[in-house]
Amino acid sequence: MSFQKPKGTQDLLPGVVEKWQRFEATARSLCDRFGYKEIRTPLFEQTELFQRGVGETTDVVSKEMYTFEDKGKRSMTLRPEGTAGVVRAFVENKLYGDPDVTKLYYMGPMFRYEQPQAGRYRQFHQFGVEAFGSQEPSIDAEVVALGYRFYQELGLQGVRVELNSVGNPESRAGYRVTLQEYLRPMLDSLCKDCQSRFDKNPLRILDCKTDAHRFDDAPSILDSLDEESASHFAEVKEHLEAMDIPYTVNPKLVRGLDYYTHTAFEFKAEGIGAIDTIGGGGRYNGLVGQIGGPDQPGIGFGIGIERVLLIMEQQGVSVPAGEPLDVYVVAMGEQASKYAVPLLYRLRGQGLRAEKDYLSRKMKAQLKSADRLHARYAAILGDDELERGEITVKHLENGEQVSIPIDQLGSYVKQSN
Amino acid sequence: MSFQKPKGTQDLLPGVVEKWQRFEATARSLCDRFGYKEIRTPLFEQTELFQRGVGETTDVVSKEMYTFEDKGKRSMTLRPEGTAGVVRAFVENKLYGDPDVTKLYYMGPMFRYEQPQAGRYRQFHQFGVEAFGSQEPSIDAEVVALGYRFYQELGLQGVRVELNSVGNPESRAGYRVTLQEYLRPMLDSLCKDCQSRFDKNPLRILDCKTDAHRFDDAPSILDSLDEESASHFAEVKEHLEAMDIPYTVNPKLVRGLDYYTHTAFEFKAEGIGAIDTIGGGGRYNGLVGQIGGPDQPGIGFGIGIERVLLIMEQQGVSVPAGEPLDVYVVAMGEQASKYAVPLLYRLRGQGLRAEKDYLSRKMKAQLKSADRLHARYAAILGDDELERGEITVKHLENGEQVSIPIDQLGSYVKQSN
Repeated sequence: MSFQKPKGTQDLLPGVVEKWQRFEATARSLCDRFGYKEIRTPLFEQTELFQRGVGETTDVVSKEMYTFEDKGKRSMTLRPEGTAGVVRAFVENKLYGDPDVTKLYYMGPMFRYEQPQAGRYRQFHQFGVEAFGSQEPSIDAEVVALGYRFYQELGLQGVRVELNSVGNPESRAGYRVTLQEYLRPMLDSLCKDCQSRFDKNPLRILDCKTDAHRFDDAPSILDSLDEESASHFAEVKEHLEAMDIPYTVNPKLVRGLDYYTHTAFEFKAEGIGAIDTIGGGGRYNGLVGQIGGPDQPGIGFGIGIERVLLIMEQQGVSVPAGEPLDVYVVAMGEQASKYAVPLLYRLRGQGLRAEKDYLSRKMKAQLKSADRLHARYAAILGDDELERGEITVKHLENGEQVSIPIDQLGSYVKQSN
Repeated sequence: MSFQKPKGTQDLLPGVVEKWQRFEATARSLCDRFGYKEIRTPLFEQTELFQRGVGETTDVVSKEMYTFEDKGKRSMTLRPEGTAGVVRAFVENKLYGDPDVTKLYYMGPMFRYEQPQAGRYRQFHQFGVEAFGSQEPSIDAEVVALGYRFYQELGLQGVRVELNSVGNPESRAGYRVTLQEYLRPMLDSLCKDCQSRFDKNPLRILDCKTDAHRFDDAPSILDSLDEESASHFAEVKEHLEAMDIPYTVNPKLVRGLDYYTHTAFEFKAEGIGAIDTIGGGGRYNGLVGQIGGPDQPGIGFGIGIERVLLIMEQQGVSVPAGEPLDVYVVAMGEQASKYAVPLLYRLRGQGLRAEKDYLSRKMKAQLKSADRLHARYAAILGDDELERGEITVKHLENGEQVSIPIDQLGSYVKQSN
């Protein structure tokens, strides 16, 4: 009987996991400087939270969720995205009582039952931020800037920001009518999905996977923005320009659900050939209320880790696979082999990366192992030397070797770091 | 409609999440020095993996698993522990082909449907290590030492190691018979669970929750060890002594399943009153074969994060809640407020923790916010100053303030770090 990982999931092994660690460390460092604090919410939630917080009409909720009944007969769902849980926690824990803006980030696994393909998994991972409590355009710009800078610090090339505004609810309601008027004559020729979106969700028709090209002359939502909405959008753009963050306005970048307001954005990058979306987000002033909280504005983004790592690989951005070993203790003889155990423990306690053989191998095989692990030094110890309290230290790159007192091994290796 | 987190789960909010970050950073640093590399396996696996890898007779598998059918009608289970998935990945990815010992660590969520209580959750978290490929007692001792040192580096007091050996399969088979002979006369008076364990799993009767005290004079497994097993155990103890790791031998510390061999251990710590198990592990030379791999020995431990953090709290081990802010930019006037956006972006790009107001608040409220966020400096900017290219920097602890050119703000704050 042998076992395989579930379809659409990954094992992250040493040699690859370092890229994930780098992604996460970069995100943490950046969020720290930008004042976003980590939040961790459960990996499953009541199913209804996602129905309300993501939207029942979305593919994610209607087709792709991992929903199950727990032993207490409650319907639970593995989270398909990060925002709903964070908003739920923001409300349940009354974080809105903080006099300052609440700035949060999260990183971790999400689950969607989709057809797996390059860069798309059933257990996938996202890094996201959410900022609650401010209507100011400067925080919209900050969230976009944080995402943009994140890609830069990771070493990705040619990341572009696409920007739009879906306005306040009044502006969007007006646009909805205008857009339906424009679409009505072609309604019969639209794809089935879009026909069903016409009433519920007409804005989403604009990014239909098959018909999007037909809507090149559709009215722009930007022409429907009222004064408040237009001025919010103008200020966001002004802030981005002041930070030298290049963007293009894409009036087709819309989000269908009612709780999205004002700023919408996506990050795009060039991999092999195709241009890919590697993250996106926007303002959702209606969402906190939608799931039972007070009327509090919010804005955030989500960035897919697998997708970003795929494009880093395609762009040849390299990540070193861990630090090299400081010292490999090669022990010969019974007493020396025994002594290697506390010696190693001491070296590691001094902050050094230290290793030894665990397979009773001969000296030559131990030295080979030291090479394979990219050790800087081999520390060679025989029973005779142990008796004299000495050890031979060999610099593996230049082959130089010296004999030193055993108890100076740690400081010797450290000094030459 | 308002939502709550599922029963038995936690939201980890800023102010608490820093303890988790500290736990994880300590584990990562230690594993790095000890040569253990991270592995990440999926959060769910085929249900059968846990039936074979954890054991169908265990409470975990028979009563506590989150099992569900996915949309492809496969039975999947949220992982209830970490070892089975790591062993599956070790086999599936043929890591046993590495000429060196394979040393891995993992950290993350696990799921068991249990009655929640202090320090016990339905979504809980473990840090664990697994070392494959070596039979040598020195690696048993290394794994125990890594766990012991981990608690020390976290700052926990009074952690004790309890140690035992369940011997090789031959020794254990002999002990099984001896133990059944001892237990048979009292069989009728044992609890129901233990009666059913008598044939399947008699070793587990020794740590029965209700009757354990009755077995004080039970035969010790240590008297059943054959020469190979006794010598392995003696060497493990010798290595621990050489590392000055205090331990006590507890011959009642046994594990029922057939794939456990030789070393078994637990870490205990004193919280408020009761002494708690805060981690444990052992050697499992039969497990890799059990789930379809080659005959490869293994040893590891698992440490529950919630339990450890609870005892740290009870012992008063404090963890600072993040680094203080370097600088809070207080902007007054329209131009200054706008300029604060790129100024902040620049400061953060220089590696500083920088913040501003996002609520159009007056100067006094902004300064209060700077205090609340423990900023070291407030950088105060008005429209007039902006025109002169200057900014006022106020040291919030001693109240001193100076006026400097704006473009020197970053280096000024950095120098005084």
